[in-house]
Amino acid sequence: MPKYAFKIEYDGKPYHGWQRQPDVPSVQQTIEEALYKIAPEKPSIQGAGRTDAGVHATGQVAHAELIKSWDTERLLEALNFHLRPALISITQCQVVNEDFHARFSAIERRYKFRLVSRRSPVIVDSGWVWQVQRDLDIDLMRKGAEHLIGKHDFTTFRSSICQAKSPIKTLDEISIKEFNIEHGKEFEFTIRARSFLHNQVRSFVGTLERVGAKAWDHARVKEALLAVDRSACGPVCPPQGLYLAEVIYSSKVFT
Amino acid sequence: MPKYAFKIEYDGKPYHGWQRQPDVPSVQQTIEEALYKIAPEKPSIQGAGRTDAGVHATGQVAHAELIKSWDTERLLEALNFHLRPALISITQCQVVNEDFHARFSAIERRYKFRLVSRRSPVIVDSGWVWQVQRDLDIDLMRKGAEHLIGKHDFTTFRSSICQAKSPIKTLDEISIKEFNIEHGKEFEFTIRARSFLHNQVRSFVGTLERVGAKAWDHARVKEALLAVDRSACGPVCPPQGLYLAEVIYSSKVFT
Repeated sequence: MPKYAFKIEYDGKPYHGWQRQPDVPSVQQTIEEALYKIAPEKPSIQGAGRTDAGVHATGQVAHAELIKSWDTERLLEALNFHLRPALISITQCQVVNEDFHARFSAIERRYKFRLVSRRSPVIVDSGWVWQVQRDLDIDLMRKGAEHLIGKHDFTTFRSSICQAKSPIKTLDEISIKEFNIEHGKEFEFTIRARSFLHNQVRSFVGTLERVGAKAWDHARVKEALLAVDRSACGPVCPPQGLYLAEVIYSSKVFT
Repeated sequence: MPKYAFKIEYDGKPYHGWQRQPDVPSVQQTIEEALYKIAPEKPSIQGAGRTDAGVHATGQVAHAELIKSWDTERLLEALNFHLRPALISITQCQVVNEDFHARFSAIERRYKFRLVSRRSPVIVDSGWVWQVQRDLDIDLMRKGAEHLIGKHDFTTFRSSICQAKSPIKTLDEISIKEFNIEHGKEFEFTIRARSFLHNQVRSFVGTLERVGAKAWDHARVKEALLAVDRSACGPVCPPQGLYLAEVIYSSKVFT
């Protein structure tokens, strides 16, 4: 059966995360229901990243096997037609080899986190950033972030319900860019790793915000990491600033 | 009485424009009602630009005279407190001279328009851009825009209900930047003039989109301008990509 990979953009706010669950709306279920309209065999769709409730995506990847062979542009348009008015958009569609698996073939995931520091309420990006009213020091946040790069036991930055077999992961990048916005600042975090633990990115950003606000010394991030203890973590920040931005495979899937 | 200038950000979608009107919500009325909570004399607030229904602002300016003298930071916070949960935010507040008038003292207004060309529905910026599914040629749109720069009779690009005394205006800038977005392109228009006619920016962008889509030759923009005839205008584009970005005064009002 032909196999297709999809690149997917969504607004995380109305969904209880990517993964299908009983009784609550999920991104996976919403896409599968659109798929059933054009594929009566009711195929399932497998996503690369199981984003949490409220987390957005601009570059989620998923795959499905369909009985019928489709022109990829027509498949993309048919799915988007049946998805309406859901806050989900299929932005790309490609035929992939039968051994491709959106989740298990991925070699790296890139997340983006948007943190805004401003006194006045954010309106234009409301729901798309995490806003704090405190001033934040980017140099201190960068110093804190450096302690997290590399291969570590990330138990401190892992939710207690995380199902990963091992808490040992390799963090390839956690970098921060600063932009001036109207009477405030936006900090854009880029976080890259082969894979992530549950709540890992939000645990990082929530902790680094404490460093930027000078409530934590940057060295405390290293102490927290070495404690290998969930209770040493800073506050887990809310999901609305987080985006699954890209999933990378050993060969390019999308043009 | 002390006079205050405010810089204001808002989401245009829930409001029937800036200006107070009977029976429909407006930005002006919403801010005035917040103001009444802290100023029982019920001051009115005067805006620099009377944005239309659905048009956003990141840099609207307005002024009000209050009996009580306020610390500007406290006034800003009190107003934002009473504005909640309206989609309006006071981002700056300054004391101004008694001869300052947000509208009549302004020497230039800058609008931004965000136009996205992409096949798949826009999700992350839904409600904040005008999306078309066609490809657009930026070089052709720029050629079309050049015809509009300078002092002209803009009757063609003026709504039939426009109340301005004269259709003659001087357009200082209409420039376009292009950004790659996920599987599409965003075109950001910057449009500057001392003042604008009703629907002028949306008439420009709707017309230039026709040029970018190759439905209009760029020279037809000049013909339309010289026709001095509303019926020669291209389609007026929708408001959700339009932002009042900045109002400029002869001396700097905000820090």
